[in-house]
Amino acid sequence: MNLTEMGKAAAAAKYEVQKMSASAKNAALLAVADALTGNCGRILEANGRDVSRAQENGMHPGMVDRLRLTEARVEAMAEGLRQIAGLPDPLGEVLDRFTRPNGLEIEKRRVPLGVIGIIYESRPNVTADAFGLCFKAGNACILKGGKDAIDSNTAIAESIRASLAECGACADAIQLITDTDRETTERFMKLNGYVDVLIPRGGAGLIRAVVENSTIPVIETGTGNCHIYVDEYADIQKAIPIIINAKTQRIGVCNACESLVIHENIREKVLPALAEALRSASVEIRGDERTLRSIPDASAADEEDYGKEYLDYILSVKTVDSLDEAITHINRYNTGHSDSIITENADNAQRFLNEVDSACVYANASTRFTDGFEFGFGAEIGISTQKLHARGPMGLKELTTYKYVIRGNGQIR
Amino acid sequence: MNLTEMGKAAAAAKYEVQKMSASAKNAALLAVADALTGNCGRILEANGRDVSRAQENGMHPGMVDRLRLTEARVEAMAEGLRQIAGLPDPLGEVLDRFTRPNGLEIEKRRVPLGVIGIIYESRPNVTADAFGLCFKAGNACILKGGKDAIDSNTAIAESIRASLAECGACADAIQLITDTDRETTERFMKLNGYVDVLIPRGGAGLIRAVVENSTIPVIETGTGNCHIYVDEYADIQKAIPIIINAKTQRIGVCNACESLVIHENIREKVLPALAEALRSASVEIRGDERTLRSIPDASAADEEDYGKEYLDYILSVKTVDSLDEAITHINRYNTGHSDSIITENADNAQRFLNEVDSACVYANASTRFTDGFEFGFGAEIGISTQKLHARGPMGLKELTTYKYVIRGNGQIR
Repeated sequence: MNLTEMGKAAAAAKYEVQKMSASAKNAALLAVADALTGNCGRILEANGRDVSRAQENGMHPGMVDRLRLTEARVEAMAEGLRQIAGLPDPLGEVLDRFTRPNGLEIEKRRVPLGVIGIIYESRPNVTADAFGLCFKAGNACILKGGKDAIDSNTAIAESIRASLAECGACADAIQLITDTDRETTERFMKLNGYVDVLIPRGGAGLIRAVVENSTIPVIETGTGNCHIYVDEYADIQKAIPIIINAKTQRIGVCNACESLVIHENIREKVLPALAEALRSASVEIRGDERTLRSIPDASAADEEDYGKEYLDYILSVKTVDSLDEAITHINRYNTGHSDSIITENADNAQRFLNEVDSACVYANASTRFTDGFEFGFGAEIGISTQKLHARGPMGLKELTTYKYVIRGNGQIR
Repeated sequence: MNLTEMGKAAAAAKYEVQKMSASAKNAALLAVADALTGNCGRILEANGRDVSRAQENGMHPGMVDRLRLTEARVEAMAEGLRQIAGLPDPLGEVLDRFTRPNGLEIEKRRVPLGVIGIIYESRPNVTADAFGLCFKAGNACILKGGKDAIDSNTAIAESIRASLAECGACADAIQLITDTDRETTERFMKLNGYVDVLIPRGGAGLIRAVVENSTIPVIETGTGNCHIYVDEYADIQKAIPIIINAKTQRIGVCNACESLVIHENIREKVLPALAEALRSASVEIRGDERTLRSIPDASAADEEDYGKEYLDYILSVKTVDSLDEAITHINRYNTGHSDSIITENADNAQRFLNEVDSACVYANASTRFTDGFEFGFGAEIGISTQKLHARGPMGLKELTTYKYVIRGNGQIR
C-alpha cells in the first residue's frame, strides 16, 4: 500500500475504533496480547534476522541490545497491553457543559484524536506499546519504526492485525510503513488530511528532524537537559542523595539530571562531599571557576556544556550568587522538561516553582519522577517538552482531544 | 531590532508579564485603551497613509474597507481592550492535584503559554485585539501584520508600548515586526526557542503558508467548509430558517454554511421552498442531479464544489440516501470546523453528533454560533480547526498551558 492509501485506510479505521465500546476495545487488547505470546516464535525469528543484519553492519552493542527481543521481552510487550486494557477508558468524559441564554446546550466532550502517526527508532517493543495506547484512546495509528527493526516490526504488526481481524475489530487500526527510505518518511510527515498528530519517539536528532519537516501538528517529546538547583537554604542531607539519584540511577533517560546549579553561600558545604559521592559513581564533573576551587580535580566547563543533554556519566556545575541568577541560567539552558530546587526556604521554593519555565518543576525531589507511571497515569507515550496540547508525561488522556456538541431547537443568529 | 533580538526581548518580557497580578494587568489594559483613544489622531494619520498607498496600488475596495480606520473603529479597539480587562483572569487555576504513595504532592496548574507569535493580514484592529488577549492571559506577543497596514500597526503598537512603559509594565510584551519582506516572515516562522506558539489569523492561503513553513507549533484557525444536513426526519419549519441564516446572515465568515446535504426522502418537501427563499437572498445553488430535479434552475455541482469554502452567495447541495452516506460525505469534505444536522429523530442526531469529526457539531441550530462570544467566552482569538491543544472557539484559556508543580521532602527513585 502506498502512503495515501494507508492514510485513507487509517482515516476510515479511526471511525471504527471510535465507535467501539470500552469493553470491546479491552477484549481486543487482551486478544492481541495473547496472540503476541502465541506468535512469539515467529516474532523472535524475524527479530533474529534484524539482529544478524545489524551486527553485520557493525551496530553499536548498546543499540543491538535495544533491538534484540527475547521470550521475556515479547511477554513484557504482551503484559504491557494487558495493563493498558486494565486502565480506565479516557473517552466520553464531559469536560464542561453549559446552556446559553438562547437555549443552546453546549457540551465539551472528550473524543479521540483520530489518526496518530508515530515515528520511532529501532526498538520493536514500541510497535506494540504505541498501538496499545493509541487504540485504547480510540485512535487508529500509522507507525514508522527504524529500518533496522523492520522484520521484527512487520512480524509484530502482522500479529496484531490478524488478532484484531479475528475478534471483529478493524485491522487497519494499526498500519506499519515498511518502506524504509528517507523519502517515504518525509512524505509521511506531510500526510495532512489523513494524520491528525505526529509523535516522534527517540533521540534529539529524530525529534528535530520531525519538528523541522512535518506539516502535521507534532507533539515534541523527550529531550531533557534537567537541572537541580541547590539553594543557599538547602538541607544537605536531602541535596546529595537527590543529586546522586537524579544523575546516576539511570543515565540514558530524559529525566536524568545533567546540570547542577549551586548557590555560592553553600558551595563549600556541598561540593566536596558531593564530589566524593559522584566520584565513587564514576561521574565526571565539569564546572565553572568557583566549582574548581571546591573540586580541584573537576574539569572546566565551557558554554556548550551547560546546553548539553549528556545522557552519560557527566555532570556540569554552575555557581550562582542568587536565586534570580539560578532561575535565569536554568531558563536559558533547559529544554522545558524537569528542573528541581533543593531548599528549606518556602519563598524561594515558590519563586522557583513559579518562574522556571518547564513542564515539571520540583521542590526537594529528584527529577527522575517525571514519568507517566510515577505520576500514576498507568502508561506513557512520552514526555512532552512543548507547551501546546500536553506538557510533561503523556498518558491516555493526552491522546485525546475534545469536541463541542451543541443541541438546539431551531436557533439562528 | 532584528528577529533574534526581538525573540530574546519577548522571552525576557514573558517572565515579567507572567509575574503581574490580575489587577496590574487589568489596570495596564485600561491605560492602553485610554492611550489608543488619546492617540486617535496620530493613528488615523498613519492609517491615512496606508489607505492612500493601498488605493494607489489598486487594492480591492472590500480590502481597503478592512484596512481603513475611523474614529469609531479606534474607539471600538479601545473598548475591546476594556472588555478584555473585565474578563476573569484565566491563570492560577489548579486543574488537578494528587498525592503519590511516596508522598510527592503533584499539582497541575494553568500557566501562560509564554511568547505567542501572530501572523495576520492587513486589518489594523487585530494589532490591539491580539495584544490584549495575549497579555491578559499572561503572555508576551510578537506580531506580524500585513504589509499594507504597516503604518497603522506601527502607530498602534507604539501607542501600546508607550502606555505599558508609563504604567510600569514591560513594553516588550508587544513587539511588532516592521520588516515586510517575505524572508523575514519565513525566518519568524522558524524562531523556535523564543516563540512558543504561532497563530495565523486570516484566509486559507495565509494559514496554509504558516502550516507548511513553520517549525514552531501552530494553531491552525479559520477555514470552514461548514455543512448542514437535513435528515429525513427534519422539521421543515426549523430547517429552512436555519439554512437561510447559516448561509446568508454573513457570507464572508468561517462559520457560514457552504454546503447542504439532504436526505432523498425529504428532498421534494424542502428544496423547492428553500430555493425560493435562497433566490430572494440572491444565493446561487449548485447541486447534484437529484437536486436539479427539485430545483430546475440550479446549476450542476462538480466534485470541486463540495470541497470549497465559497465565502460567497453560493451553496452546494448533495442528495444522500442515508444518514451514513451523509456522515461519510461530510467527513470527507469538511474542514473540521462546524456541521449541523436538522432532525427530530434523537438517534440520528446522536449518531451525527458522535460521528461527524468537527470541532463543533450541532443538532437543530445554525453553524453561525461557532464563535467565542456566542459561546460566552467573552473574547476570541480565532476558531481552531486542528485537534491539538484547542478545538473550536479559542478564548483566554486557550492562550494558556499548564505545568506540573511537584513538592517533595527528599524523595528519590
